[in-house]
Formats: sequence, structure tokens, C-alpha cells
Amino acid sequence: MELTRKDILGLSDFSVDEINLVLDTAESFREISTRTIKKVPTLRGITVINLFYEASTRTRTSFEIAAKRLSADAINISTSTSSVTKGETLADTAKTLEAMSPDIIVIRHACAGAPHILARLLGQSIINAGDGSHEHPTQALLDMLTIRQKKGTIEGLKVVLVGDIMNSRVARSNMYGLTRMGARVTVCGPAMLIPRGVEGMGVTVETNMQKALQDADVIMMLRMQFERQQGAVFPSVREYARLFCLTVPMLEEARDDAIVMHPGPINRGIEIAPEVADGFRSVILDQVTNGVAVRMALLYLLAGGRQ
Amino acid sequence: MELTRKDILGLSDFSVDEINLVLDTAESFREISTRTIKKVPTLRGITVINLFYEASTRTRTSFEIAAKRLSADAINISTSTSSVTKGETLADTAKTLEAMSPDIIVIRHACAGAPHILARLLGQSIINAGDGSHEHPTQALLDMLTIRQKKGTIEGLKVVLVGDIMNSRVARSNMYGLTRMGARVTVCGPAMLIPRGVEGMGVTVETNMQKALQDADVIMMLRMQFERQQGAVFPSVREYARLFCLTVPMLEEARDDAIVMHPGPINRGIEIAPEVADGFRSVILDQVTNGVAVRMALLYLLAGGRQ
Amino acid sequence: MELTRKDILGLSDFSVDEINLVLDTAESFREISTRTIKKVPTLRGITVINLFYEASTRTRTSFEIAAKRLSADAINISTSTSSVTKGETLADTAKTLEAMSPDIIVIRHACAGAPHILARLLGQSIINAGDGSHEHPTQALLDMLTIRQKKGTIEGLKVVLVGDIMNSRVARSNMYGLTRMGARVTVCGPAMLIPRGVEGMGVTVETNMQKALQDADVIMMLRMQFERQQGAVFPSVREYARLFCLTVPMLEEARDDAIVMHPGPINRGIEIAPEVADGFRSVILDQVTNGVAVRMALLYLLAGGRQ
Repeated sequence: MELTRKDILGLSDFSVDEINLVLDTAESFREISTRTIKKVPTLRGITVINLFYEASTRTRTSFEIAAKRLSADAINISTSTSSVTKGETLADTAKTLEAMSPDIIVIRHACAGAPHILARLLGQSIINAGDGSHEHPTQALLDMLTIRQKKGTIEGLKVVLVGDIMNSRVARSNMYGLTRMGARVTVCGPAMLIPRGVEGMGVTVETNMQKALQDADVIMMLRMQFERQQGAVFPSVREYARLFCLTVPMLEEARDDAIVMHPGPINRGIEIAPEVADGFRSVILDQVTNGVAVRMALLYLLAGGRQ
Repeated sequence: MELTRKDILGLSDFSVDEINLVLDTAESFREISTRTIKKVPTLRGITVINLFYEASTRTRTSFEIAAKRLSADAINISTSTSSVTKGETLADTAKTLEAMSPDIIVIRHACAGAPHILARLLGQSIINAGDGSHEHPTQALLDMLTIRQKKGTIEGLKVVLVGDIMNSRVARSNMYGLTRMGARVTVCGPAMLIPRGVEGMGVTVETNMQKALQDADVIMMLRMQFERQQGAVFPSVREYARLFCLTVPMLEEARDDAIVMHPGPINRGIEIAPEVADGFRSVILDQVTNGVAVRMALLYLLAGGRQ
Repeated sequence: MELTRKDILGLSDFSVDEINLVLDTAESFREISTRTIKKVPTLRGITVINLFYEASTRTRTSFEIAAKRLSADAINISTSTSSVTKGETLADTAKTLEAMSPDIIVIRHACAGAPHILARLLGQSIINAGDGSHEHPTQALLDMLTIRQKKGTIEGLKVVLVGDIMNSRVARSNMYGLTRMGARVTVCGPAMLIPRGVEGMGVTVETNMQKALQDADVIMMLRMQFERQQGAVFPSVREYARLFCLTVPMLEEARDDAIVMHPGPINRGIEIAPEVADGFRSVILDQVTNGVAVRMALLYLLAGGRQ
């Protein structure tokens, strides 16, 4: 089977088959990173541009490592050192990059929809590495790979997302992907940070965290995006942590074999207690490892590879 | 034939044979970027340092892609993350880099003459990627490649450069190269932005844009370098755009088959109307594509390659 | 012989055999950088992360070139473009990077001990590329390689370190390494910049530079770290230069065949006179060349290579 779409913009229209294709391919690539020689010639001569309009360590590094382990050439462009400061439009930057014949452009941008603009304008494959508060599909795919790896399946599991549901692109992509894969998804957080009508996405809303965690198989904590919060819509950090921090007692509300996830970087003591983040239920670092594998899979599939 | 010079500092002393050598070599390399596997082993084991003292996306990325498509190792150094902030002199930085045995150093610097200092000090090949308001030879070479590709020849064509002739390194390098290749060059812009005595370079001056464009085969618009303009020598942006913006009616003054060029990034609605920049006469994106090919050619020739 | 330690954190506990192993291996690698094709496949498929929390040109570039000449993949992370700004702890960043399966992490950090934290937390090899005022072991190793190359041996030589002994990580690593290798080390500088009890490290203190230089075989000038000096513990620059700048007359106090070293970047006219920095006694650029070779050796040995 091969991926027939040109771009990875979001999971809103991903089919079960497509998600399984990506996860199965990632599964087969995970082993490469455990070898002594962590490199295969699969994408030799392929050019991948990492175009990051927002600071990032883990996502950019993950894509760069993924590209290099497949022998692709990775070119990093970050706004701090680019002519973006010269006021060029996103469309002109995109057309300019296209003219240099890259094969895949990975873009992170503060504006929702920026990757979609590129996808429409360019012949190349575009991967959304996070667009504003909209989607972060590669994160959700690595999350689903981790759940499947730890639980054997996604279907039928109770997955609870906790935090700023409204502004989280990680939450949005996971809601699309997890419900599509048959998980029962509950979102939890301060009422003002849960978008109205979110039930329409097929999820359950529960603002009381103890109740939300009942029988949970998977607890996915979201990062408090202090750097994106402006204004007073947000309760105090102390108040937030008192109600929504995943502590050891809070964790007892979930199933005994529940796993704890977080996209990172974590705010210790705010959304998650250190003992939980570092505890044996945590699969946070498995998520990072799976991130490289998922990105290798996406680069491979977009370049025309088959599983 | 091979290139006998060590450095590419500017086009002021480039011969017709040398320009043709670079353009012919670039022509033969252009095809590589259209392959599925965009990589040849030609420069394996060659180290190219991109030393950028000014922010840049297109030029730095173009050089990096050119190096990687030839299998050279590319090392990027930009001032924002370098010890340049520690007050080291350019000469000391240069000698330090030399001691690490790179083969080619590509430098962009805000000061005219910076690449020449490196060229005198170092045994390595230096490529000027733009030095202040002085020269930008790789841009002019890609411009000439584009003209030759679209028009079959450069000799005898009327080429009109429009904008801030005084401060434009792109204009200066093109004036040297185009006149050497036998083009009839007209420069056009506000009188205060045209250097006195520029006719000595073998070009015609015309401050009225309608008149300048009469019978033009090639219109080369320059970027308004707002980030380099200080003080009041410059008319207001609105006044400038009214007189010198390349609009659809303005374009009708030129020949029916005239091509429109711009080194980018473009200021839409200031020096060029969006309909013209995106119109069928525009070869702006061909310039970008040719940029990779020209830089591959230069890296190849400086490393001792022959055409 | 092979290196049995996992990390290169400092020279405080390096044995004579270990230092000789690194220097001998570096000696054998130096030749690679003189070839036309400066690349061997030795570390193909090995991932090296350069994690720089302080600005750097020479050290980061040196490590990147060393990695690439051995065909390793080098990933650069610098704080200016990373999620370090998102307030993640060093430990969490480290565990995240570990989960991406790099083989070696090179870290520079403003805090003494940062590399040791990584070394304890991670299974990967850590190389300290400078931690605060603590150690800079790869610099001291390249310094010793240079001394051995120029003088045939280190044992028995009189080596004088001049400058801010208190705050210099270069001085500290060299004091450990040079005394271990049997050099007679004298430290010299303003009394307030010499740590109390430094004699316990087996070195001699002399605050008068003329006296310190008597019979010196090697003069190692330290960089005045103006960017790290805060407060008024430091004499004026003019006063400092008058007493401790290595001028031509000052140099005459040393042996006729004494060599002059400096880790760079140099402050011309402050700690060293231009004529001395550029004179025939200076081996400053040999140090840079040897830096690439020493770093190649360390990457090779940490990846399991043998000499």
C-alpha cells in the first residue's frame, strides 16, 4: 500500500487505513535507530527543507534526524536568520523554495493554515509541523504509535486529554485521529479552555479531572502554552495546578495499567508532577523515540515509498 | 577549459570566456536538480563554509543545496550564533577557519571588500555572496544564465535595470557582466539614486521609466533595500512606487517579448506590481532555479573541475 | 588500546595513558584534513548532536567538521532557536535528545557541571565543550597535541599560563593535563584573578609576568573574558594590558625557542600584541588545525574505535 496524498496537513480527513499505513511503516523504521549504523540509503538525493517560523528543538531535531537516517539532505531555515525579516510574503518564500527543487518541505508556523497555503501553491509535499492552534499531525501520529505499541490497539481505549484543549494543536490532531481509530476520548480542563461544541468531534467533556480519569487507559497531558497565552482568559497557574496537575493521587483515579503521555516540553509541577513524569507509567520518552520513526515513515511515504 | 582564478569576488574583471565557462557549466548542472535522485558524488570530501554576516534565506539556502547536490559538506556560520559577537576581527575569524582546512568559503558581509580581505589572506577559494553595496557576482551570473536561457543570447539585447542603482550590489555586478557580454544596458531610477559618472561603466542613464523601457528585451527590477536606507536621500515610498513601480501599463512600453526579472525578495506593490511579478513575462522563479545551478558550477570549477 | 570511559567531561582524572591515546589517535587523523577528499567512512551512521547553550564559532565548527570528515551525521542545536526558551530543564532536554538515539552529545553550557548532569543521566557519550569556568578538556588536549608536535614532548617543559586563571576553563583543564604529563606549570596574572590555593594543583604562582616568563618553553595566553566579567574585581583594561600583554620585549624574557599559544578568539593589544600573535613564535593557528584532529580522535574513540 502507498500513501496517495501529496501532503500531511492534518488528521481531520485521514482514514483508518492511512493512519495504519503510517503506523505500520513507522513500526518497521523504529528498528533502524537501534542499530550501530543508524542509516539506510532509502532517500539518498532527496532534499528536505525544515522551515521553522517558531522556535523548536524537539520537532526540528526529530525531523532532521529522521531525514539523515534515511540519507536525505536536510536544510534548516529558521526565522531568526532568514530573510523573513525582510518582509517577504509566505507565498513568495514558498515559491522561491520550490524553485530550488526540494522534495519535501516541513513547516511550523504561528498562523493556522500556513501549511495549507504552501500545499496549494507548491508541487512539493508539505508536512505540517504545527500551525498555530490548529493541527500538529505528526505529534498525534507518534502519540497513536505509542498507544498502539503499549496497549496493542487504540480501538475501545478510554483516552483522556487534559489541559488547554482550546488552544492546543496537539489536542485537536489527537481528537481527529483517536476518534477515527475508535478510541473513546474525553477532554478535560478549565471550562474556559474547552471550545464550545467540541462534543461534535465525538468526544466527551468533563471539567472535573478526578471524574475524567475514571477507567482511563491513556492520560494525555497537554503543555500549558504560557508563551502563547495573552490576556486574562486563564486561571492563575497555582489554581490551574491545584485542579489539573497530574499528581500521584490523581493518577490513582485511572486504570492500574494506564499510561501517561505528554508532548513536551513539560512544565514540571504545573501540568504534571515530577514523580508522575518520571514514573513507570510515563511513556513520554517513548513518544520522542516514536517521533523519529513516524517522521521517517512520513518522509518515506511522501517520497513515494510503499509498505 | 577550466577556471584559473582562485576566487569569485566580483565580475569587474571577468572575461567573456570566463562568464561563458560558468554559464555553460551551470547549464550542464541544471538537469541534476530535475532528477529523482538529485545528487552526484562530484565534490565528495570537499568542505564548503557558508559564512553569513547578514541574514539571508535564498542565497544561503541556494549555496547549501548546491553544495549538498554535489555531495560536498556544507557548514553554516551565521553571526547570530557565532563568536563574532566576541569582537574578533574578520581577519582572525578568516585565519581560524582556514586552519580547519575548508576548500571554499562563501561570505556575505555588510562591508564592501570583506571577501577581498579573505581572498588575500587565505589560500582557500572565496566566493562573494554579497558585500555591502559593492558586488553580488553569483546573482549576476544567474541573471545572465536566465537571460541566455530565455533569449538565446545576451549580446545586443537591451537590458534595463530599474531602482536604487547607487546602493545595489546586484546592479553593479550586472552592469559589469552584461556590458562585457555585449548587452546594451540602461539604468533607471530617481536621479539621487544613480551614481554620478555611471556612464563610464558603459551604460545609458534614463530617469524617466517610460522612456527607459522603450524596446527593452529584459527588465531587471531591483529590490528597494529599506533595511539599508538611512536618512532622507530617498523619496517617499508612495512617490517612488508612482514613478518606478513596474505595472502592467508600464510593461507595455517594453518589447512584446520582454522578460521581467527581480533578485528577490520582492516588495509587492512597491517596485513591482503583483500581476507583473506573477505574470507570464516574469522569470523570477527561473532565476532562483538557475541560482542553484550557477552555484553548483562555481563550487565545481573552484574545486578544480573542468568543462 | 581503546578508551574505556564513556564521557569526556574534564581532564582532572585523565591518566597519562589516556592522554597519550587521544594525542596519538589525533596525530593519525590530522593527515585526513590535508587530503583532496577530506572524508573517511569511519563513523557513517553515527549521530553527533552539538548542543550549544553559549555562542561559539570555532568550537562548534571544529566539532561539526570533525564529525563530517568521519562521515557522522552532525545535528546542531543552539539556544537562540531552541525550546530552551520554553523553560524546559536541562535534564528534560537531555532525556528528550537521548530518546532520539544519538551516539554522542557535545555540550557547551554556561553552568559548571552541566555536562556531568548529562553524563549521569544518559547512556550516550557526552563531550564537554566548555562548562562555565570549570573545564574545557578538548581545548587542553589540542593544546597538548600542539606542544608535543612543536617540542617533541610535554614532560619537563616550562609552560606559563597568563591571564584570568580564576575564571578560565581553558587554564583549569590545561593545569590538570599539563601537570599530569610532567610539565612544570607556572600561572601568572593579577593576584585577584588567581584562585587561592591553586598551588595545590601542582603549579607555581608568579604575579610578575617578566619573572614568570623566565626560561619558559611554552607561553599560553588566555582570553580576557570581558563578556563573563561582571562587577569590579578586574583592573582596568589599560592597566591589565600594561602588565600582562605579551609584547615583543616581554617575549624576550622567555627561551629563544619558546612557542606562543592562545585559545582564541584573541583580543589584539589587550592580552597579546599583534606582532606576537602573528609572529613566527605563534602556533595559534596550529592549535585550530589540531582542534579538528583532536575532536575527530575523541569522536572516534568514544564510538568504540581503537588506536
